[in-house]
This record gives sequence, structure tokens and C-alpha cells, in this order.
Amino acid sequence: MYQDLLEILKDPERVSVNETVLEHHSGGMDYHERKKPDVVVFPKTEEEVVAIVKYAATNKVAVVPFGAGSSLEGHLLPLNRGISMDFTLMNEVVAVYPEDFLVKVQPGVTRMQLNKHLKKYGLFFPIDPGADATIGGMAATNASGTNAVKYGTMKHNVLGLQAVMADGSVVAAGGQTVKSSAGYNLTELLIGSEGTLGIFTELTLKLAGIPEATVVAKAAFESVEEAGKAAELVLQSGVDIGKMELVDAATIQAVNEFKGTDFEEVPTLFLEYNGTAEATEQGIAVIKELMEDAGTVKFEFEHDSLKRAQLWEARHQAALAILGKKPGCKLVATDVCLPISQLAVTIAHTRQLLDEYKLDGAILGHVGDGNFHVAFGLDTDDRDEMERFHEFNGKMVKFAIDHRGTCTGEHGVGIGKMKFLKEERSTALPVMRMIKKALDPQNILNPGKIVEMEEVHS
Amino acid sequence: MYQDLLEILKDPERVSVNETVLEHHSGGMDYHERKKPDVVVFPKTEEEVVAIVKYAATNKVAVVPFGAGSSLEGHLLPLNRGISMDFTLMNEVVAVYPEDFLVKVQPGVTRMQLNKHLKKYGLFFPIDPGADATIGGMAATNASGTNAVKYGTMKHNVLGLQAVMADGSVVAAGGQTVKSSAGYNLTELLIGSEGTLGIFTELTLKLAGIPEATVVAKAAFESVEEAGKAAELVLQSGVDIGKMELVDAATIQAVNEFKGTDFEEVPTLFLEYNGTAEATEQGIAVIKELMEDAGTVKFEFEHDSLKRAQLWEARHQAALAILGKKPGCKLVATDVCLPISQLAVTIAHTRQLLDEYKLDGAILGHVGDGNFHVAFGLDTDDRDEMERFHEFNGKMVKFAIDHRGTCTGEHGVGIGKMKFLKEERSTALPVMRMIKKALDPQNILNPGKIVEMEEVHS
Repeated sequence: MYQDLLEILKDPERVSVNETVLEHHSGGMDYHERKKPDVVVFPKTEEEVVAIVKYAATNKVAVVPFGAGSSLEGHLLPLNRGISMDFTLMNEVVAVYPEDFLVKVQPGVTRMQLNKHLKKYGLFFPIDPGADATIGGMAATNASGTNAVKYGTMKHNVLGLQAVMADGSVVAAGGQTVKSSAGYNLTELLIGSEGTLGIFTELTLKLAGIPEATVVAKAAFESVEEAGKAAELVLQSGVDIGKMELVDAATIQAVNEFKGTDFEEVPTLFLEYNGTAEATEQGIAVIKELMEDAGTVKFEFEHDSLKRAQLWEARHQAALAILGKKPGCKLVATDVCLPISQLAVTIAHTRQLLDEYKLDGAILGHVGDGNFHVAFGLDTDDRDEMERFHEFNGKMVKFAIDHRGTCTGEHGVGIGKMKFLKEERSTALPVMRMIKKALDPQNILNPGKIVEMEEVHS
Repeated sequence: MYQDLLEILKDPERVSVNETVLEHHSGGMDYHERKKPDVVVFPKTEEEVVAIVKYAATNKVAVVPFGAGSSLEGHLLPLNRGISMDFTLMNEVVAVYPEDFLVKVQPGVTRMQLNKHLKKYGLFFPIDPGADATIGGMAATNASGTNAVKYGTMKHNVLGLQAVMADGSVVAAGGQTVKSSAGYNLTELLIGSEGTLGIFTELTLKLAGIPEATVVAKAAFESVEEAGKAAELVLQSGVDIGKMELVDAATIQAVNEFKGTDFEEVPTLFLEYNGTAEATEQGIAVIKELMEDAGTVKFEFEHDSLKRAQLWEARHQAALAILGKKPGCKLVATDVCLPISQLAVTIAHTRQLLDEYKLDGAILGHVGDGNFHVAFGLDTDDRDEMERFHEFNGKMVKFAIDHRGTCTGEHGVGIGKMKFLKEERSTALPVMRMIKKALDPQNILNPGKIVEMEEVHS
């Protein structure tokens, strides 16, 4: 396989069987057992991706697309070995259309790289998962983040894309308009398909203007449930909230230790409003009132821009902070999403479950859209701890599904959520399988993820 | 077939071969040649839909779902005769979840019926195509309307749905959360699939709060191109515009005649801002400034709520007004959508084409999202007029596609846009065909629309 791929790429630097490289591509930032691919390739062009996929199709070899490696549910595991396709070198911003609020990028561009590039236009791409993920990876999992409450998720912000399908054909889906009713929505079928239906080679993204003003505030509460209730109030008020993040005491404690910050260690809503200067002033005043109605014990503005940045950076790095508390352990982050009215009760139930299973988990999440996580640092070799985690996770997800929620709001299915998907989408799974079979009959594209197929080639 | 269906529905009132009923179900509100189905059924429950589809699958009979009959591109034509399935009797609002901003409806509910129902909750469903279409039909074409610039299209506002597939199985896709990464996005694959992949039996919709305040204004321009440029300015400013509709002189003239209004007969942008009272006052002030920068010859607020309602009603009925000008003629409404920066040039080109082809068309559209229409009343028996129309339409759509646009922003493909879809989505069409073949191997669901299949059963 190595020789064949070398003949395709004609560059020994971009076809690797080096142990360190294989190890780096043996999974994501998750707790699943790692497995090495046979070989890692680093394509630079769509033509190269096509040639590699055609080779894989002819030889029934699995291909797993790989971006920043920040998957949390096992998406990057080469379950059948084969080829890990690393997009690090396809990281060009292809074209910016500032007057159309659009940008065309290669899949290996990371969100931070993109926003650095866009700054001079006064524009930014709002989707912000915790990691500095690649746009391709973010599209593959329909990622979101703290800005989703205002700007939506990847599927709301990818207008078009090109993908290499399992037979090596290149498909252009969607386009550059904010609306279209031109045929089946292949763009959104591919977004969230986790590399199992096609491999992205180009994406057209909708951009937003960098807001004129931003105000940040913190509201402390006596319990996580009260904070959850306060979040519901904000959403029901219809105020155009920019971000609304819930962090519980344990998370703040971990962040303080990890980042040397001095945030008060109580359940807190981190809030942001952005827009024109005038709208922002009004917006945050409404939010302050709502927090007081909801019984906040302390409401504070964060006017200082450095402190403001520090606050959101701390939130973004909360997962790493949790991990930092338990050296040698692996990050485990759960993910459920609920209708607004079911959020507080689910958070309360989750806290009970954590106590019941004696797990040291931190609750944090994007409560602006009903989505929350529990983050752990777990010793994957400690069978007892892992068993307790799995039981906890199963019960938490079941509670969420029973309360009209979904088993994953933004992390995706990978292998970690497959059993819950069966429960949540029992009638949809056969249709997903029919689509997978029609578009990838040999099951070579990221096999073993989302849907189980009858036979898995290797 | 009649007897078999009567045995299924057990109600002679709901299985019809009456000539008037067949005629009513022989097409939409469009110019395509009509064709009668063999029979029209009026199911009341999902179980009945399942039984009818199973009957159709066993007997290889085509099924065409039918809502309000307001299709503009031939979606409702029973090309292979068979069954027209009318959803008029499945028009129940199943459940309202006001605290979650959600409603669950049957597909036959119309948008006006729904909003009347929701008023007491202070909520509304913002998608507003011109006609009082059914929610099922709106989902089938990924419809939108004047509110799309602020609230998005159907695909942004349908969170979950149930559909009966070609084999009679019932699939639940999506759910009740605003975010989910749980497997392939079947919801959005089915939205815009025009009844060719599955038949909706239930839809869960995202609602919005009725805004506290609304301000409406009109800005007159010397030319359509200047009005288009002004619309671009608003979008680029980032102001949270509620509606922005362009109507040209010919349209206003037709509306005045039809509705007895006295709008000035010049190219005009109809603008709306809504939100809190304070935000609205600021918002409309920003818009006024932008209009002046863009060279408006007259800017007027419409403070009077009656006049305001009249204004939007006039806009909504513009298509009917155009038709009213030519009695006995059929409504023909074109539909393209462009990236913002290409809007003005395309509108200017379209006006030239109209002159060139000596067609009396009115330009109107949702320029807030790059989408515009040309409406005609055409005598479909006048071969010369129809030929000129088709040539005009082909050139307009080609210009739009060449300027990074799409052949349909909201009307859908039906049969009227199939040849343009081939041009716009040449690489995507084979994949659409693979999906259609996998999910409807006998091609019984609304055959002959969107994608041509090898063989069409009857």
C-alpha cells in the first residue's frame, strides 16, 4: 500500500508509515481505544484526494479523513486500519468575497487561522468549538460552540461544498446563495456525516461582521439548577443573546487552577451581548434584569477587554483544565441537547447521577441552545472508574432522550454514540443505512461510524 | 384502483374520481400543461397514508402529495396519473410547546391557520410564501418568503418530521432540539425533496416571539438597479432588517389596479424592522440613513398599522395582481437567487431581457436574501408569447447561474426547473439519482420531478 500511495503522491514526505505519525493518527482527543492506520497520507490537492480514494476503492481499503485530531467520540479511529488522510496541507483560504459575506476554504484551514485571515475585512466565522478544529472536521460533525445561540451551527453556515465520493467522483453541492431550493440538499446530508459519505475538499462559508460592541457579564447562582432556569428565562424573553455559557463550581475551580485565574467558584452563567454600541447597552440591561428576576446572588459586568478575553479563553479551555487536574488521564466529554424547558431538570438529574456514581465531573455547556456537557479526566485503565462512567453516561443520555432531547448536540456520533443513536433514531437508522449503502457500497469511507453496515472491508 | 382505495379508507367522501376534484388536482398554480390523476384520496391519519402508500408500492402506482395547490413549477402534476394525495383533512395543530418555542403540526395545516392558532401564545411561524400554502408543501419545496432575511427558510425552521417512505415505513427524523449531530440529516434531505423521497405526516417547527414593535418604510428609487444597490447596502451594514422587498413600477401599478391602493408607481423598496420598541426606533433610523446614502428620491414611514398591513398584503398579492391584469391568462413566476453583490447587475440584466423579448413582466422579490422573481400573466395558448417567455427564462436563469447564483431560491425544481438543475448541479445530480433510487426504487413517489429516473412506472 505504501508504495502504491507513494506513486500517487510522488513525495515521500507526504506518505508516512513512521510510528510516531501512525500513533498521532490512531484516534482523536477521546477515551476510545486507539488503533493505528496502515499509512498516513497528506494530500495537497483535490486531484490527489481523488487519486487516493480511487486507489482505495479499487483495493477496498478504508479511508479516514483527519483534521486537527480533536474528535471526542472516536471519529478518527481507523477501525479497519487502511489510510488516514490528513488535511493539514490543504489549508488554504481559497477566496474571500467580503461584499457577499462569503469565504471559500480548503478543509484543513482551522477556525483560528481563518479568523486571523478574515480580520482585515471586518468579518469573522462565528462557529467556535472548544478546540482549534479544522473547518472540514467541524463540517463533518456539524460542530458548533458558544456562538451557536446567535449564529447557528455548521449546517447553518456552510452554503456549499465539494466532496470526493466513495467512487472518486467529485460532487459540488450547494453554492454561494443564502437560499436555494435546487434539488436534494446534499450539502446538509454531507455535513454531519462524519466522513462516511464523502470527503470534503472545499467549503463555502457564510461570514458575519465583527460586532461594533461587546459586553460580557457573569451571573452567579446558588445552584446549577437555578442557573439553568435563568438561562431558560433569557431564551424565552427573546433577547438577542450573543453567548450564554453555564459553568458549575467544579469547572471554575479547575479553570482557576489551570489558568491561574480567580473566578468565584460557584455555578455561574457567562453572558455576552454584541451588536451596535446602543443595542448592546440596552441588551445587557435587559439581561441584567432577567438575571435578577431569576435570583442571581451576584451579577457583574466584565468591562475590561483583557479580562473579557480571559473569561472566554478560560471557558474554551475548560476541558483541558479538567484534564489538567488528573495528569495521565484522558479527556472524556459527554454531550446532550434538550428543548429549552427540559434543560434545568436534566442538569439537576445529571448532578444527582454524578454523585450516585461517585464521579468527579464538571458540568459546562452552551445552555443558550439547550446543549450541555459533562467533562471528566478519566483513567481509562481503571476498569471500575470507566464502568461507572459508562453507566452514568447511559443514564444521562437516556434521561435526555426521554425528555425530548438528542444524544449529541455537537460532538457527533463516531463510535461513542452509536448505541444511543439506535435508541433515539430507531426508524431513521434503516434509511441512513440505505443512503450509506447507495453512496459507499464497499463501505470504505470511515467505516464503522454512525451506522453499522453488514460487512466491513479491510 | 378506486375500489381498492375505498376499501382502505372506508369512506366514499374521501376517495374521489369526481371530474371537478380530478381537475382541481391536475396541477398547481402554474403554467404547465395539466393532467388528471386517476383518483384523489383524502387521508385523515398517518396510518391511512401508510396503507395507501403500501397499496401504491404493491401495485406500482404513482403517489403525488397535494397541499394547498399553490405550486409554481409543476410539482403537483400527476405525470404518470395514479393517486393524488390531498392533505386538506390532516390539518391539525398537534401540540404547542410555548416554553420551547415549538409546535407540532400535521402537514395540511396552512401558514395562516397556524399563525391564527399561535397568536394567543404571543408566538408566530415566520415563513411566509405568497400563497396560504400548507406547512407540508412549504417543507417539500423549502419555501421561504418576505421574512427569510431575518428568520431563514423552511430548512432553518423545521426541527423534526415524520414521513412515510416509498415502502410504507414511517421514519422520524430530527426532533425538538435546536441543535443535533445525531447521524445523517434526514430532516434536511427530505425538506426540499418535493415529495419524491417521502411524504410528510407530521412536522415540528421552530417558532418566534411576536415582536413588540414593527416599523415599516418605503424608499423610492429612480431605477430598479439603484433600488437593488440600496438593498445591498443594507445587507452589508449588518443591520438586523426584518423584511426588504423590491417592487418595480409595473408591479405597483398592477397592485394599485387590483387592490385599489394608491402607491406611487416607481421602483420601491418596502422595508420593515421589528424588535423591541427601542431597537426598532434605532434600526429604522439606520435604514433611513442607508437609503439616503443610496440616493432614494423619497423615503416615507408607514406609521399607520392599517396602512402597514395593507402594504404587506399588497406585496403578498402582487402575483395575483399581475394575473388580474390579464384575465384568462396563467400566472408565471420565475425564481432565481444570487450572492448579494450580484443582485443589482442581475436585476438590470433581467429588465433588459424583458424589453428584448417584449414581455410585460413585473420584477419583485425578496432582495434581502438575493432572491427575486419576475411575474407574468401569460396566455399559454399563445405559442409565440410562451416561446418568448421560455427564451427569456432560460437566459435569465443562465445569467444567474453564471453569476454564482441558483436556478431557484424558493419555488423548487418541479418539472419547470429540471433542465436548469442539470446545468447548475451537474455533478450533484448523479448523487441525487442514487439517493432517489435507494429510497424509492420503484419511482412511485411524485415521479418525474427534480431528477429523471431511467424508467417511470405507472
